Amino acid sequence: MEFELGQLADLIGGELTEPSQAGVKVSGVRSLDAAGPGDLAFLWDDKYLAAARTCKASAVIAREAPGGLTCIVVDDPQAAMLMLLGQVYEMRHPDLPPGVHATAFVSDEATLGEGVAVGPGAVIEAGATIGERTQVRGGAYVGHNVTIGADCQVHPNATILDHCWLGDRVTVWSGAVIGKDGFGFLQREGKNVRVPQVGNVIIEDDVEVGALSTVTRGAIENTIIHKGVVIDDHCHVAHNCEIGDHTVICGRTAMGGSVKVGKNVFLLQDAGISNDRTVGDGAVVGRCARVLEKDLAAGEQIALAAANYPPVTAMKIQLTLPELPNMRLRLKKLEKRVDELNKAEEQGRP
Amino acid sequence: MEFELGQLADLIGGELTEPSQAGVKVSGVRSLDAAGPGDLAFLWDDKYLAAARTCKASAVIAREAPGGLTCIVVDDPQAAMLMLLGQVYEMRHPDLPPGVHATAFVSDEATLGEGVAVGPGAVIEAGATIGERTQVRGGAYVGHNVTIGADCQVHPNATILDHCWLGDRVTVWSGAVIGKDGFGFLQREGKNVRVPQVGNVIIEDDVEVGALSTVTRGAIENTIIHKGVVIDDHCHVAHNCEIGDHTVICGRTAMGGSVKVGKNVFLLQDAGISNDRTVGDGAVVGRCARVLEKDLAAGEQIALAAANYPPVTAMKIQLTLPELPNMRLRLKKLEKRVDELNKAEEQGRP
Amino acid sequence: MEFELGQLADLIGGELTEPSQAGVKVSGVRSLDAAGPGDLAFLWDDKYLAAARTCKASAVIAREAPGGLTCIVVDDPQAAMLMLLGQVYEMRHPDLPPGVHATAFVSDEATLGEGVAVGPGAVIEAGATIGERTQVRGGAYVGHNVTIGADCQVHPNATILDHCWLGDRVTVWSGAVIGKDGFGFLQREGKNVRVPQVGNVIIEDDVEVGALSTVTRGAIENTIIHKGVVIDDHCHVAHNCEIGDHTVICGRTAMGGSVKVGKNVFLLQDAGISNDRTVGDGAVVGRCARVLEKDLAAGEQIALAAANYPPVTAMKIQLTLPELPNMRLRLKKLEKRVDELNKAEEQGRP
Repeated sequence: MEFELGQLADLIGGELTEPSQAGVKVSGVRSLDAAGPGDLAFLWDDKYLAAARTCKASAVIAREAPGGLTCIVVDDPQAAMLMLLGQVYEMRHPDLPPGVHATAFVSDEATLGEGVAVGPGAVIEAGATIGERTQVRGGAYVGHNVTIGADCQVHPNATILDHCWLGDRVTVWSGAVIGKDGFGFLQREGKNVRVPQVGNVIIEDDVEVGALSTVTRGAIENTIIHKGVVIDDHCHVAHNCEIGDHTVICGRTAMGGSVKVGKNVFLLQDAGISNDRTVGDGAVVGRCARVLEKDLAAGEQIALAAANYPPVTAMKIQLTLPELPNMRLRLKKLEKRVDELNKAEEQGRP
Repeated sequence: MEFELGQLADLIGGELTEPSQAGVKVSGVRSLDAAGPGDLAFLWDDKYLAAARTCKASAVIAREAPGGLTCIVVDDPQAAMLMLLGQVYEMRHPDLPPGVHATAFVSDEATLGEGVAVGPGAVIEAGATIGERTQVRGGAYVGHNVTIGADCQVHPNATILDHCWLGDRVTVWSGAVIGKDGFGFLQREGKNVRVPQVGNVIIEDDVEVGALSTVTRGAIENTIIHKGVVIDDHCHVAHNCEIGDHTVICGRTAMGGSVKVGKNVFLLQDAGISNDRTVGDGAVVGRCARVLEKDLAAGEQIALAAANYPPVTAMKIQLTLPELPNMRLRLKKLEKRVDELNKAEEQGRP
Repeated sequence: MEFELGQLADLIGGELTEPSQAGVKVSGVRSLDAAGPGDLAFLWDDKYLAAARTCKASAVIAREAPGGLTCIVVDDPQAAMLMLLGQVYEMRHPDLPPGVHATAFVSDEATLGEGVAVGPGAVIEAGATIGERTQVRGGAYVGHNVTIGADCQVHPNATILDHCWLGDRVTVWSGAVIGKDGFGFLQREGKNVRVPQVGNVIIEDDVEVGALSTVTRGAIENTIIHKGVVIDDHCHVAHNCEIGDHTVICGRTAMGGSVKVGKNVFLLQDAGISNDRTVGDGAVVGRCARVLEKDLAAGEQIALAAANYPPVTAMKIQLTLPELPNMRLRLKKLEKRVDELNKAEEQGRP
């Protein structure tokens, strides 16, 4: 795709600082550092001003024009970027046309809202209700009595099992599984006996569930993902978890059963939270960090920064670590003895 | 769903302590702490007796009746709970009706036992054999020459690849992949050359494989999951692993190739076991713990309790850890020197 | 399957050292240690000579014949093994017959090369191009405008989303998801706003992507997997990553966005790499190791060998670790004081 700078300025409601450049064509969007002629770049924070001054892009979309550059000046460059990328995205990933594909199966006992599209090979079982304009793409499975709101995207080969409830504008990516039974077993006579999981999964408006992520069914009460939560790929939300509004869950994060996570929390890449732990509003669990033994308070941040030891160092650390608690005691004892020696030495002085 | 207490007592073969309450209706099951009027709760261990005494449930199912509560007294409250929840579960998740759905594909060369149900869009390839009453749900894939026993549940969009063998009452959850080739490569001239994996996967009776979990095919010998093993979601059982009876494998646990795990082992959330390691019967690998350098003996327990350090502490620990082995040597040296000083000081005393 | 030793020698172009054994039948392949009568074993490195001498196999395929054994002598026993196992594998996993299965959906606007096979329930959307002899197996999904080269294997229930580009001889295993949008969000007014991801995924020749692994779409630039890379199961290659030729990525390895990994790198089981990190050619990231705070140079190796502490030790280590940086300071101070005492003691000597 290709735009002329004049067109672009009109499109985003901005002002082109060099009207003579209105006919210049741009076809790419790059970072300030990487952009060259034919590219567009964005400056939305003054801390990138230095990078902007040496930027080789055909134009920079900015709040104010740094001298010597062709700019399109707008009030909110970030919003302009989101809008432009959104238009490119829509062209590249158009909605399926409304209607049920000939190779899909939609039960006679399912209810489809106006404008719903069901792709090739998709399945919608009896009792399911799909809201207006929702897209259920190829090979996706929507189980019995599932409720899905309006304007949702259920991507190819996603699985939503019986009874689950999803709000409006929810995105479920390929390979995700919603509503699998929680992992509840009792040990009876040395065997694992299944505890039937009769709870449900509730996913509120504007949630995104990543590829190959699971949200499992509650044991008795429901598992709940509140509005605006975004979940990356390979994440595991176990039975009876509850995740607060607008929380961000990055890739490969997992939690045990009955975890409560507050609002606007960040669980960074590969975070882990144990059964029954609570993470307060606005807390941050760092990359690879684990919330195991105690809860995390609102606003608290934890990190595990274990990193980059060469193998021999790592091996030595591993062998020494079990000595660490004892080393601490030995150090304390030694300090006491040196104090005494010091005193003796002072007394012994002439 | 709703029961009268009298009905319930009959259903589970128990005795209602307050016959006047026989007509009271309950519609939920909650924990002793959370239950209120209209709920049922369970007391199966005397350690919860205090919670039971203040419980607000309409009735408590218990072995003996704590004073002042409406109870249904049964010999085995846990069994009663499993039975009741099982009935609720069956109502919420009824079996598919026997037969092959119009949109499914079952090869003419496949063999289906009596009462088998094949859901919409499911595929059963040539040479596959499916035991009596087994449910292969919507979008599930059963490959060539696969054998599945009786009374199994293959959930929507599960994948069972060619030749795999599953016993009776096996559950395979959505997104699980059984029988992918093990990750065997040889490096030849700087390239990765595939070692063809000609082994198989054997899954014995009463095993459950969680959502988005893999059990990969053996290189030459088979990968074997023995009877009664339960595997949670996002788990990885690699080629040539063998897992003993009734072992419990919690979410996100992974193992390398040729791992041998004994009977009644617990691998807790996010455990990891390296290639070729052995874990003895009844061992416990704690949350986030790794069996890397040496085997785990029968009954042995390991844990990694790394947790909840604030970021600055974590960073400091990280920077200091490579000094730890040297600190140990310095400490030892210092102790020796202080010993000598002590001796000198004693000799120097008048 | 069963071979006579004479047949086998012909098949792999080798010489049978005991021609009288030409009619002996073998039906299995085992390791030198495990093999018995009726089995075949391989000796490709002299370091296994001792094991070979006591091997009970009916024949050993070797470069030179150790005395007292029936051998088939070949120049390259490893190549012979790959060839033989390859033949067994092909018999066990034959290609689908060319053509489109009656229950598959192939858009009229898709282009299939000669000899392409599309299995039951598979979907190929408009604008997709599939190269000669490629196999798209049951339930797999190939999105709009996807390009797949020749001789590829797309396994059952794999998902390749719109626009992705795959070279020749690429294998995509079941449950893998290629081309999901990268996890890019901006926080605006406390909400997570999707950054539309308009980049693509490029997968070059001879790449293998494991079961339930993801390769996500770039934000603006592409995510690129260069030729010969092999990726195990449960791996996460995030948006804008670039992986160099012939790199090996073992099970459960994950990386954040914009990671650059060089050629011939080994990322061992459960490795992790943070956003924007670079790993140089030939580097090795050990089992469970994390590249978090700084890049890894070419050839550099890191390992995290944390392992096998009993729970009480692990708990004590955990409690003591926050003291470690302070212990280091105390130790240093103590050394200084003991130095001074020593000097004083020496001066005090008569």
